[in-house]
Amino acid sequence: MKEFFKVETIQGVLAHAPSFSAVDRETVALADCLGRVTAEDVYSDVDIPDFNRSTMDGFAVKASSTFGASEANPAYLNIRGQIRMGERPDFSIGPGEAARIATGGMLTEGADSVIMVEHTDTLDDTTIEAYRSVAPGQHVIEKGEDIRHTQPALKAGTRIRPQESGLLAACGRTETTVFRRPRVGIISTGDEVVPVDQVPGEGQIRDINTQTLSGQVLAAGGMPMVFGIVKDNRGDLMDKCRSALDCSDMVMISGGSSVGARDFTVEVLDTLPRTSILVHGISISPGKPTILARSGGKAFWGLPGHAVSAMVVFAVVVRPFLDRLCGLSQTVRQFPVQAVLNRNLASAQGRVDYVRVRLVEVDGQPMAEPVLGKSGLINTMVKADGLIAIGMNTEGLEQGTTVEVMPL
Amino acid sequence: MKEFFKVETIQGVLAHAPSFSAVDRETVALADCLGRVTAEDVYSDVDIPDFNRSTMDGFAVKASSTFGASEANPAYLNIRGQIRMGERPDFSIGPGEAARIATGGMLTEGADSVIMVEHTDTLDDTTIEAYRSVAPGQHVIEKGEDIRHTQPALKAGTRIRPQESGLLAACGRTETTVFRRPRVGIISTGDEVVPVDQVPGEGQIRDINTQTLSGQVLAAGGMPMVFGIVKDNRGDLMDKCRSALDCSDMVMISGGSSVGARDFTVEVLDTLPRTSILVHGISISPGKPTILARSGGKAFWGLPGHAVSAMVVFAVVVRPFLDRLCGLSQTVRQFPVQAVLNRNLASAQGRVDYVRVRLVEVDGQPMAEPVLGKSGLINTMVKADGLIAIGMNTEGLEQGTTVEVMPL
Repeated sequence: MKEFFKVETIQGVLAHAPSFSAVDRETVALADCLGRVTAEDVYSDVDIPDFNRSTMDGFAVKASSTFGASEANPAYLNIRGQIRMGERPDFSIGPGEAARIATGGMLTEGADSVIMVEHTDTLDDTTIEAYRSVAPGQHVIEKGEDIRHTQPALKAGTRIRPQESGLLAACGRTETTVFRRPRVGIISTGDEVVPVDQVPGEGQIRDINTQTLSGQVLAAGGMPMVFGIVKDNRGDLMDKCRSALDCSDMVMISGGSSVGARDFTVEVLDTLPRTSILVHGISISPGKPTILARSGGKAFWGLPGHAVSAMVVFAVVVRPFLDRLCGLSQTVRQFPVQAVLNRNLASAQGRVDYVRVRLVEVDGQPMAEPVLGKSGLINTMVKADGLIAIGMNTEGLEQGTTVEVMPL
Repeated sequence: MKEFFKVETIQGVLAHAPSFSAVDRETVALADCLGRVTAEDVYSDVDIPDFNRSTMDGFAVKASSTFGASEANPAYLNIRGQIRMGERPDFSIGPGEAARIATGGMLTEGADSVIMVEHTDTLDDTTIEAYRSVAPGQHVIEKGEDIRHTQPALKAGTRIRPQESGLLAACGRTETTVFRRPRVGIISTGDEVVPVDQVPGEGQIRDINTQTLSGQVLAAGGMPMVFGIVKDNRGDLMDKCRSALDCSDMVMISGGSSVGARDFTVEVLDTLPRTSILVHGISISPGKPTILARSGGKAFWGLPGHAVSAMVVFAVVVRPFLDRLCGLSQTVRQFPVQAVLNRNLASAQGRVDYVRVRLVEVDGQPMAEPVLGKSGLINTMVKADGLIAIGMNTEGLEQGTTVEVMPL
């Protein structure tokens, strides 16, 4: 190796994320907005609801007409009429009066609350007894109580879940301005790697990383751009990297775990214009031989070739950069699942060890059961529900320790 | 109400799920398999890997040639040649011999382990010193160690995450047989409900539930079929329900929270052929007035109209039925996030209360902060990260209690 780089901590790597910019914007239909990130504050064209709305079946009243009412001493109210759903009532009520209303109906003028039908008795066509008192505003959603049209309903940089999409519907947004899905170029390398549709010959294996990394990019809201397999050849690698950088917002090249292949990647990065290596080696396991470079404002990753290592590095390190490109206003808060470790785990100091675990329920308690196996074995990731981290300055974890599991 | 139904517990409702069948199968391309559910056991056409594979850069050796080697007393080995990536080596080694190998290379005949290049010194073109002993199998992935072609690589009924799709790639599956995405018909009702592209008039609100429920169906692996808004009219409702049942694997009708509208739904269900109401009322809040019927083998849901109630019922009760339709071999294990409740919460006995909470980090600890507000307010779901359940026989939860948060 011509150059020596200090192995960087995870925090040190993540500190580079804010220096990359979010991608540009586009407009999508409401039906296609799920999982996207808002690119501007969203306002509603009307207050939601745009009227005082009943949350119960019953009678719209002035609350004061019911004060003091009880089973023993009911209040008698005159029914002035029935409120029709989806219409403004054409009558108002005064003290001692009531209007029949269904859930979702608009309160008539003069009414400030709703008494539930269960708390009344109908004496005749025009009179009810009320057995409870209601407070002003009770069983009513007030005009603008859900969303006021003067305030942003959603802030820019918000990931759209089903509830956010419902809010967009409420705001009348048939279209929304969101960040484009970042295009992530994916390159696999290795003379021994063959495409999925090929039967591997002796000494060959099929390309796994293109598929796993594409899946992780998709799940994180990006758009994978598959550039296929490059043999360990400097010229071909250079050409592929150039076209990937041209067409993508970020590039990930996986493989090249062998010293020779890693050297090719570094040589290519040294040759590319406006390119500098930011990180060469991260103090994590698996995943130490990871490279991060900036090339013309784009992040360029050299990921390890082992399937597990590449996935772990994506989950722990690459993902926050992709979140940044997606336009998220803050890094996704990962609230981990807590579980009890069911065996001792040794670990080397000076690096963060990521251990695959399966979650199993024992006596109603979640237990984390390590999935052991080499980082070249994809089946260990299939068996795993998540990852636990064993910190830099920890020699290991004892059975019975409560650990935090990052879902996979 | 003409009929009286006993309010059912959540467990009682979920007990009906196994009586509905998974949908039929289809074949999808590898690139489209993410999130789908395997419909048959998947086998690889070859062992993975199909040869003994080095996990390190170094020298393939017979482990016995290194036994007893140390810094002070190195073993001397003759280099017999270099193993090329992706090819079967055309030479074998014997005791006291070594073959140069890179990560991913195929062990030559006679070798059973790899000594890392860092633990050797090259004396000349044909001789190395080895400073460590290696055990048989060390730094080697053995033929079939990841996946044996005689055993299922993936079982039927497995949800395909990025790692499962990587495994499919390794198995040479350019296509996979999966369960079709269940079609879920979605109907909104209410005279006051207008489409998203319409400005609500007085007393009107836009349709939120079609959007939120579509999003939840999509996120759960289903395919929403939007049937639009029906006014509170028995004939129209009947027609819409019939076409929804014809075209879908499951139907959800939301709204009709008012007694009158609920009656329409029950009348329609009473009239439809081969239809019986299984559940009329669930002991949860929000969401009590939920209806579940079976119509010609399909689940038909009457969900409450309030946006929050409909979403909660979907997450807690409907989702396991959809998982069943998706072909999942087991209900998705929801391992909740644990957090500390940051205030007292009152609750009524005799029902399970679902409370929206925001997760906030205080001194590095996740805290659950209740998001209070009426179940008609969609903004409360936007503010929430998850739900906590307060059990049937609990009067409430005290501040400081550790609670389990189901992510939203």
